[in-house]
Amino acid sequence: MSNMPADNSMTELQLLDADTATGRSERAKWLLTSPDPPAPWHQLFSSIKQTLLPQPKPKQPRPNRSFLFMQTLFPILKWGKNYKAAMFKNDLLAGLTLASLCIPQSIGYANLAKMDPQYGLYTSVIPPLIYAVMGSSREIAIGPVAVVSLLLSAMISKVIDPSVDPVTYRRTVFTVTFFTGAFQTLFGVFRLGFLVDFLSHAAIVGFMGGAAIVIGLQQLKGLLGLSHFTSKTDVVSVFGAVIKALHQQWYPLNAVLGCSFLIFILITRFIGQRNRKLFWLPAMAPLFSVILSTLIVYLSKADEHGIKIVKHFKGGLNPTSVHQLNFGGPHVGEAAKIGLICALIALTEAIAVGRSFASIKGYHLDGNKEMVAMGFMNVIGSLTSCYTATGSFSRTAVNYSAGCETVVSNIVMSITVLICLLFFTKLLYYTPLAILASIILSALPGLIDLHAAYNIWKVDKLDFMVCLGAFLGVLFGSVEIGLLVAVIVSFGKIMVSSIKPSTEVVGRLPGTDLFCNIVQYPVANKISGILITRINSGTLCFANASFIRERILRSVTDENNTDESSKGRLHVLVLDMTNVMNIDTSGIHAMEELYKQLIAQGIELAVVNPRWQVITKMKAAKFVEKIGANWIFLTIGDAVDVALRLKINGLNNC
Amino acid sequence: MSNMPADNSMTELQLLDADTATGRSERAKWLLTSPDPPAPWHQLFSSIKQTLLPQPKPKQPRPNRSFLFMQTLFPILKWGKNYKAAMFKNDLLAGLTLASLCIPQSIGYANLAKMDPQYGLYTSVIPPLIYAVMGSSREIAIGPVAVVSLLLSAMISKVIDPSVDPVTYRRTVFTVTFFTGAFQTLFGVFRLGFLVDFLSHAAIVGFMGGAAIVIGLQQLKGLLGLSHFTSKTDVVSVFGAVIKALHQQWYPLNAVLGCSFLIFILITRFIGQRNRKLFWLPAMAPLFSVILSTLIVYLSKADEHGIKIVKHFKGGLNPTSVHQLNFGGPHVGEAAKIGLICALIALTEAIAVGRSFASIKGYHLDGNKEMVAMGFMNVIGSLTSCYTATGSFSRTAVNYSAGCETVVSNIVMSITVLICLLFFTKLLYYTPLAILASIILSALPGLIDLHAAYNIWKVDKLDFMVCLGAFLGVLFGSVEIGLLVAVIVSFGKIMVSSIKPSTEVVGRLPGTDLFCNIVQYPVANKISGILITRINSGTLCFANASFIRERILRSVTDENNTDESSKGRLHVLVLDMTNVMNIDTSGIHAMEELYKQLIAQGIELAVVNPRWQVITKMKAAKFVEKIGANWIFLTIGDAVDVALRLKINGLNNC
Repeated sequence: MSNMPADNSMTELQLLDADTATGRSERAKWLLTSPDPPAPWHQLFSSIKQTLLPQPKPKQPRPNRSFLFMQTLFPILKWGKNYKAAMFKNDLLAGLTLASLCIPQSIGYANLAKMDPQYGLYTSVIPPLIYAVMGSSREIAIGPVAVVSLLLSAMISKVIDPSVDPVTYRRTVFTVTFFTGAFQTLFGVFRLGFLVDFLSHAAIVGFMGGAAIVIGLQQLKGLLGLSHFTSKTDVVSVFGAVIKALHQQWYPLNAVLGCSFLIFILITRFIGQRNRKLFWLPAMAPLFSVILSTLIVYLSKADEHGIKIVKHFKGGLNPTSVHQLNFGGPHVGEAAKIGLICALIALTEAIAVGRSFASIKGYHLDGNKEMVAMGFMNVIGSLTSCYTATGSFSRTAVNYSAGCETVVSNIVMSITVLICLLFFTKLLYYTPLAILASIILSALPGLIDLHAAYNIWKVDKLDFMVCLGAFLGVLFGSVEIGLLVAVIVSFGKIMVSSIKPSTEVVGRLPGTDLFCNIVQYPVANKISGILITRINSGTLCFANASFIRERILRSVTDENNTDESSKGRLHVLVLDMTNVMNIDTSGIHAMEELYKQLIAQGIELAVVNPRWQVITKMKAAKFVEKIGANWIFLTIGDAVDVALRLKINGLNNC
Repeated sequence: MSNMPADNSMTELQLLDADTATGRSERAKWLLTSPDPPAPWHQLFSSIKQTLLPQPKPKQPRPNRSFLFMQTLFPILKWGKNYKAAMFKNDLLAGLTLASLCIPQSIGYANLAKMDPQYGLYTSVIPPLIYAVMGSSREIAIGPVAVVSLLLSAMISKVIDPSVDPVTYRRTVFTVTFFTGAFQTLFGVFRLGFLVDFLSHAAIVGFMGGAAIVIGLQQLKGLLGLSHFTSKTDVVSVFGAVIKALHQQWYPLNAVLGCSFLIFILITRFIGQRNRKLFWLPAMAPLFSVILSTLIVYLSKADEHGIKIVKHFKGGLNPTSVHQLNFGGPHVGEAAKIGLICALIALTEAIAVGRSFASIKGYHLDGNKEMVAMGFMNVIGSLTSCYTATGSFSRTAVNYSAGCETVVSNIVMSITVLICLLFFTKLLYYTPLAILASIILSALPGLIDLHAAYNIWKVDKLDFMVCLGAFLGVLFGSVEIGLLVAVIVSFGKIMVSSIKPSTEVVGRLPGTDLFCNIVQYPVANKISGILITRINSGTLCFANASFIRERILRSVTDENNTDESSKGRLHVLVLDMTNVMNIDTSGIHAMEELYKQLIAQGIELAVVNPRWQVITKMKAAKFVEKIGANWIFLTIGDAVDVALRLKINGLNNC
């Protein structure tokens, strides 16, 4: 009698067994008989194709196609047809506001780039016109910007000293600008827009913050009226130069003038932020400051009392600079390198600015097309005495606030600047350098994004390290070192996180067939006699395979030691490979070693859910034959079922 | 009446709903309320601790501990107690066999390292003795090896030309050997054994193959009896030098002598492989060749007819070289760099040899302890006129075949070599250089592992690229370029595979609640109105986030286009994040953009199984709040349930 119910239950169990076993072997068969994955080169080609070629579009009749192509290249053909007088009124207003901010900023940035002031104005004439016919952003304001000006002067000064040989320096600046444009065009044509992504957001936040401080420190020269200054940009050199200069000759009047106008500009900005309708007040303040201070200096003859003034200022239309480009000299390689760096930084800034305003107005900006437009404008700029132009953060915001409708505001601005160049440059002879410094200084707070840095810190501490690395690199090294640190730390972070030998012990969530990390999910239960581990690396390769093997073997030893008291000796190790996207020959070798060492301890190895690449390579390496196809499962649940059955049989045999 | 059953079924459905909904929300709650993961530095420290510190061992009483420490440092104290006379008999035989192979090889490798022949013999005296008391491998045969000899001469020759200044060259070799030993000891003490793993198996196969061919080409100098030869190692330079030399003066007699003895050695090896009992035949053949050829030259006075002979051969005990080490010169940095490379290559070879024989005999070899032993033996070697020694592939195999029991065979070999140095060096005056070349040539096939290369090709095509890169780098560049190519390609491969923007469309396996790639598992079914995609990258970061976002959006567009005919417009995108181990701020930003763009198209976003780091960062960035906690699920099944319900409701509302 006592045997009967036991027998019955056994039969039921066996029936149930047969049923689940069928499902299990069916699932394992699906896994083992999956078709071969595409070959690596096939994958490579298809991803290159996807990157380089645009999405296929519905076909158009032939005559239309060339027109459509022209429309794609020159978006002005598209929106120009619908342009209305009412829109022009808004664009005119925005353009004039923009020009009033752009003129003093351009002169200041030219000073930062160690060029004569008219080159800043030239750069605000031609590039905006080119962008207006080729670009697709409606709000972006094109012209010289602070960070690129700093980059140019900091990197070219290392090769040619502008105070010794200003002509060669200028020629090199144009050559670099040409390279910048050429690289940008190439990036756009070959759809390499993703290169811009390789500077992570965190790196840009840190880099911009550091660059802003460095630019601010450079303004000490103008503010203190110093004649000699270091050409280095790091904090230590600059402070050393300032302290040295203060012991010699400096003119406090410059500082008084500069600081009072800086305070004036900041107050107008504060008012503008409080009352959005007065947006024109901060936009006009710099031009007003320039005019007022120039008048003061002119009337009081303060330049004879130590106030440094602009002096050299050649008016007139952009002269050609075709013959100034220099592709044969000893510095052409260096110029190309600097051009590449400037191209990336300029694009990063322009695309970030363009996209953020495009998403406010709800239209899409094609990064690759933008690159072509930027590239053309810089190539043509380099032939017409312009240095590298890009989209400016601060002026784009002003353009947007002033209610611009299209890039016509850029055309208006360009014409206004041109008029200024033609008729008013003589008047700017007495403009004090301290005012230019205060205008640059007033634009810097927008580059330091403490809020973003705080968010990065909150979300990802390692990303914050990237940000901090770029910041400190720019501050204490140079702009290149800052960029290099950012790129190396960013990629190092990816490298470390992908080869980090990470495994987790997994348990069953109660009432389900789900298996999760027992630390993350404290409700998950371990199963006695079975150890379930999951490899948490995307790749099992030479750099982490032997580590992961050691880790798993160590956890097996630990498990055996703690379980000995409860008599639940380990029978099966279930290895969940769900997360392992790829494996190499060293990884396969480590799996073979693991299997050998487990078998030596009398423990079976069950492999769960090897991914497509992994199962294919395991089959190629005959690893599947070695451990037996019946020890490969699609789910942890299936593996645990078999393992439990083995354990019961083992106990029965004892 | 017609409403009744519908009502009934609705209630049942709702009941069922309530039931599954409870489970679902319970599971989602587990996910959302999981404890915080350990901070990044905590992870970092614990992984450093695990790497650097040995596993804790059961505590021992104090007096024993120092003895145990000595035993750990000098394993001879452990096994020495149980050493028996019968074992010595075997070791003596193995040691003598080893010595007969070691003496000619050492002289040949010294020649390859561009040192006088006695330095090769010195290197076979002291390092094996040191290793015998400190090492734990029982089979490894210590002494000079081909690849390290090549590395030394190729890299140091670039700094100092040995034919111009042999004394400084020799001093630099000793200094490099000292650095090699110092680095190896440091690696062992700080448990940095994993550094050896950074040369992947594929890279080593390629590097060794290339090095073997380069070494073989270097032997053309000896075989052809050339006096002048290039100091470069690449194929092009060597062939150029050979062709140039053949047009001048060369001595065919050298080639005849060398080739006939090479054929003799290869025949003995063939016999030895056919009949395992005759293992001593190939081991003795080199020494026999040396003796016979020396006799022939001595008796026939062939050295007067163009046969090049060894000539310089200083006998006697290892002299001290303490005063020859040079830590102050201009080349000390270069020496340290070469020392580091030699340390890594020597360790890679020694540990690979040691481990493979240890696993045959079934004992475990601690990599870190081995490194300390190797380091000490090289440091002491550098003070006693030895150059870098390590474990030799070919001689270890002979030692094993000869039946060695312990490292005592190394001691026997060392003493035999010492006796040879003391009494027989005069006899080696007439040894022809061509014989040394043929001995080196005969050892090379063991370094070219075509079988391994074929296996690598079969399992992993990209790994084969690493192998090929290292091979061609060594062959056409230099040993350093080969290594550099191997390391860069290996890590580049990891980088590319971890940032590759890979996604897959997932479908339900029939009869289960499992969701798998619809291409890998053709049985899997898609669900109309719901698109399920899985991110197949281990990390969602700045380098791939915007790509993955674009890809997902593109697949949404594709899905909408193909489904339009069947009227199943997309309602929900289910995004399975199981494989995403980590996310950074750019990744979070891309998720936010994705969500925004999906919502704009009227598609809901359901996030499935974000891992520990990911859900924590999503919470920190308030992304969970944004999409709503009820759109985060633990399983795809849960997400699909909710999505289907939404779709039905949506249709009902229509």
